[in-house]
Amino acid sequence: MKKNKKGGNPSTDYIAGSDTLVYALGGLGEVGKNMYCVEHDDEIIIVDAGVKFPGESLPGVNYVIPDFEYLVKNKNKVKALIITHGHEDHIGGIPFLMQVIDLPVIYAPKFATFLIRRKLEERKLANQVKIVEYDGNSSVKTKHFRVGFFSVIHSIPDAYGVYITTPNGTVLMTGDFKFDLTPYEGNTDYQKLAFIGSTGVTLALSDSTNSAISDFSLSEKKVGQQINDIMKNVKGRFIVASFASNLFRVSQILEAAVANGKKVAVFGRSMENVVDIGQQLGHINIPKEHFVKAHQLKHIPDDKLCIVCTGSQGEPMAALSRIANGTHRQVKIMPGDTVAFSSSPIPGNSESINKILNSLSRAGATVLTKSVLSNLHTTGHASQEEQKLLLQLVKPEYFMPNHGENKMLKIHAKTAIDVGVKPENVFINKNGDALILRDRKVYRSNQGVHADDIYVDGYDTSGLDSAVIKDRELLSDNGLVSVIVSIDSRNNKILCRPNILSRGFVYVKESKKLIRDAEMIVFEALKKELEGKTTFASIKNTVRDSLEPYFLETTQNSPVIIPVILNKHSDQA
Amino acid sequence: MKKNKKGGNPSTDYIAGSDTLVYALGGLGEVGKNMYCVEHDDEIIIVDAGVKFPGESLPGVNYVIPDFEYLVKNKNKVKALIITHGHEDHIGGIPFLMQVIDLPVIYAPKFATFLIRRKLEERKLANQVKIVEYDGNSSVKTKHFRVGFFSVIHSIPDAYGVYITTPNGTVLMTGDFKFDLTPYEGNTDYQKLAFIGSTGVTLALSDSTNSAISDFSLSEKKVGQQINDIMKNVKGRFIVASFASNLFRVSQILEAAVANGKKVAVFGRSMENVVDIGQQLGHINIPKEHFVKAHQLKHIPDDKLCIVCTGSQGEPMAALSRIANGTHRQVKIMPGDTVAFSSSPIPGNSESINKILNSLSRAGATVLTKSVLSNLHTTGHASQEEQKLLLQLVKPEYFMPNHGENKMLKIHAKTAIDVGVKPENVFINKNGDALILRDRKVYRSNQGVHADDIYVDGYDTSGLDSAVIKDRELLSDNGLVSVIVSIDSRNNKILCRPNILSRGFVYVKESKKLIRDAEMIVFEALKKELEGKTTFASIKNTVRDSLEPYFLETTQNSPVIIPVILNKHSDQA
Repeated sequence: MKKNKKGGNPSTDYIAGSDTLVYALGGLGEVGKNMYCVEHDDEIIIVDAGVKFPGESLPGVNYVIPDFEYLVKNKNKVKALIITHGHEDHIGGIPFLMQVIDLPVIYAPKFATFLIRRKLEERKLANQVKIVEYDGNSSVKTKHFRVGFFSVIHSIPDAYGVYITTPNGTVLMTGDFKFDLTPYEGNTDYQKLAFIGSTGVTLALSDSTNSAISDFSLSEKKVGQQINDIMKNVKGRFIVASFASNLFRVSQILEAAVANGKKVAVFGRSMENVVDIGQQLGHINIPKEHFVKAHQLKHIPDDKLCIVCTGSQGEPMAALSRIANGTHRQVKIMPGDTVAFSSSPIPGNSESINKILNSLSRAGATVLTKSVLSNLHTTGHASQEEQKLLLQLVKPEYFMPNHGENKMLKIHAKTAIDVGVKPENVFINKNGDALILRDRKVYRSNQGVHADDIYVDGYDTSGLDSAVIKDRELLSDNGLVSVIVSIDSRNNKILCRPNILSRGFVYVKESKKLIRDAEMIVFEALKKELEGKTTFASIKNTVRDSLEPYFLETTQNSPVIIPVILNKHSDQA
Repeated sequence: MKKNKKGGNPSTDYIAGSDTLVYALGGLGEVGKNMYCVEHDDEIIIVDAGVKFPGESLPGVNYVIPDFEYLVKNKNKVKALIITHGHEDHIGGIPFLMQVIDLPVIYAPKFATFLIRRKLEERKLANQVKIVEYDGNSSVKTKHFRVGFFSVIHSIPDAYGVYITTPNGTVLMTGDFKFDLTPYEGNTDYQKLAFIGSTGVTLALSDSTNSAISDFSLSEKKVGQQINDIMKNVKGRFIVASFASNLFRVSQILEAAVANGKKVAVFGRSMENVVDIGQQLGHINIPKEHFVKAHQLKHIPDDKLCIVCTGSQGEPMAALSRIANGTHRQVKIMPGDTVAFSSSPIPGNSESINKILNSLSRAGATVLTKSVLSNLHTTGHASQEEQKLLLQLVKPEYFMPNHGENKMLKIHAKTAIDVGVKPENVFINKNGDALILRDRKVYRSNQGVHADDIYVDGYDTSGLDSAVIKDRELLSDNGLVSVIVSIDSRNNKILCRPNILSRGFVYVKESKKLIRDAEMIVFEALKKELEGKTTFASIKNTVRDSLEPYFLETTQNSPVIIPVILNKHSDQA
């Protein structure tokens, strides 16, 4: 057995049929597009299928998804997709995955099944897969695996962790979790976690998002108390923006409003949706008479009105932005208003949030954020002390931090060692790295599986087109060449000539011909590509392979080439 | 079933033979003299037998112990004493208890058995009881009870909680505990705690000492890191005072000294003892060559010397006090010394600690305390978040906070309700209040058992006599009459005429005759009392009953009468 370059862990060759493999196609070295697989012989269980939101570094890209190539090659092995909870970075990849493999069954907890069904119905895919709801008492059996579930607390209802008993040991995945000792709804199943721990966990994967945050995270109930305290004291209208997907938060805001004699108006499509779903599923139990519609606002005294809205991240088209900059039809900020952000800024959004804060302030509102009142928001992810508690309950023999950027994984690894996991039993992996379970021991595999990022556009752009284009112009700098390709993946057709945007590469005015020629080269290469069966990954490679030599030859330069695939399939279905 | 005055809990009559009783003879409404009993039919299990250190309010009293009257009356029922850990407020009452009942067996964890044996050997009582060592795998069975144990973390090695399965449900007592997710030595048995929780805990008693402290307490290892950091940087001698009984702390100080190339000198009898015991039992693993004796100090360079000593509470006769005021034979403070208090002031000691801090500072030492460096000390008791975690793991149906003053019990009760225990299932009790377990339900009993404080003097006063007398003169104010009675409890003899000290009652000069007469009255009453078999409680009552009418008649006043029993038994044995 030899040491490999990735640390002190011994590596070995995979013995098909007797070893069990554990690898990630997404979620390691990043926050997003989570996809973890456990493979034994002729069976693969997939845990989560998420997207990543690319942020400013990838202009024109709406989603990043894992390259599913390995799963396509082994599609007959895929026995089930298990979903831990309903956030986009865990379910957003399902429609893409279903385009390339026949998924026999999706197991998901109640709230997630609801969101998945809605997503698949929008894309006319709902009939192509069996969706089975699970809870903490469920178990799933396949030839080689037994899968069980334990409830955890996260920032969405119905979040679970998963443990998979394999022929070579038990693999536990926390899913996204935090410990909340006084949760608003639901609870961590401490007893089951400890029981799994006492039966012996070979390998644990645990959420690393907040591994750099010391202490224990704030209880969701403390946030509810804070919001209630604010509402007690506000004299004018109270406007609060939050993440729509955090039903606990939305529900607590509504309860505080009712407790303080305020009517509630809900603004923003996703917020309206979530209140609707929350009522349907029983997470929100506020009688109808407390809600008011936009046209009724003028009849409500200022101190009797609470507005709940989207836009806590400064999204330019969200309700709060329009309220702040005076373009909202029903609500304009006036002196006496109090606006609370029950949220924290996602990195990259601080500038747009700051803009709104200033607009609100200029218009005379009192603005409250987490930096002023620290109890205005709490995270859904475990910080260090919670990560330690998880490890104390589960007592894994081997540990692989997941769900995080490399620096987060490293800190989480150190935490695990502090709690008592042997340093040589901790693995900091990348997507595609594989671990081998063999008789309750874990080794690094000498060979990984193929993993890559796939950039996708074409879904959920409704109402955002002009903004997206504007962003693209603003953002595609630093020597980038975005190649926008519109295809219809049902009949493998290119829908229009590829469109190339460049920034920091060549002056556009001086190089109109260069760019036009490049667009033709891509078009020809893709036409050929699309004659046979193809995949997103393959299209991406074709774009790159066709342009790189051309640019190098004509400009002696190698810009970063980002293929953006606008898949028009669902829009026409 | 009627409501009684003590809250919303229903109360009922005890049905002997079928109900199970749970009550405390000490530990409720106070921090100290812990003694909790579980009784069913003809069996009583006692958990802990502690003393309380009375502090300034009780002049002339060295210990307060529970009144054992109820146990004496039911002595044939007592099947076992179970000790949770070796602190004095849990084991200090054992010799007193053994004077009044025949204890068949004491179950205690390893470190505690060591301390108990030493204590009983000093008093020639070691042969009168069987001492059995238990650990987390042990169980004790009697006719009606099964007792199991789970390891916890506290500020002393080998601390356990206890669960007692009775015919009417399971009673769990945490003992003194904290959660330390990165403990220095040992660990909480999370898996067992959660397992007990999942099998159903009817009634839980949990440590309330720090119920008013929010958050999670600091890990012991962080204190070790802090001490190591200080040692790395000190230029002169490093002197550190701590609680001798905290072997984890002492051990970490010694390890930091060795890691920083320092020799260690240990000063103070209890500190020398604990280092000795720690080495014997394997808690301290520092090679002998790192220790130096007092006479070798002058050969050690200042920056190569670490002195570990007693006196962190400002005790006037302890090593640090003598070092600070220049009366220590081998060590005098000089500029360049760093003195660290790895401790926190116990309420009541702040003035004497402050005096030492000033002496040290005047002599040129740099003084470090927890108020400057918060990581210099950590508690051994769970704060609020840990209390919540315990409740989440154990999920008791009914809850009785213990080990704390009334205000602590009340806050702990609120915490339990926040975590989900039904408000009507939480009992804030006093010593002597009894709970009835009946078919996994808990009721308040209409009748409690007798409970009272007994003030005792006569043990462990060696070397402190003059100080004690001085303190008595200073402290016995507020209309107090201390009646000091010296007896030999082996042969029921009064050893000298009772001695009465009074403050704030009558001017001593004007009332010499009054006091002398009072002393004679007590003497006569006690002589009669001691003709038959008697108990401390009974002596105490005789003192009070004989004096109260006399004082009322002669002075129209009723001073608080505090009988102080100097039992000379062991001194002469």
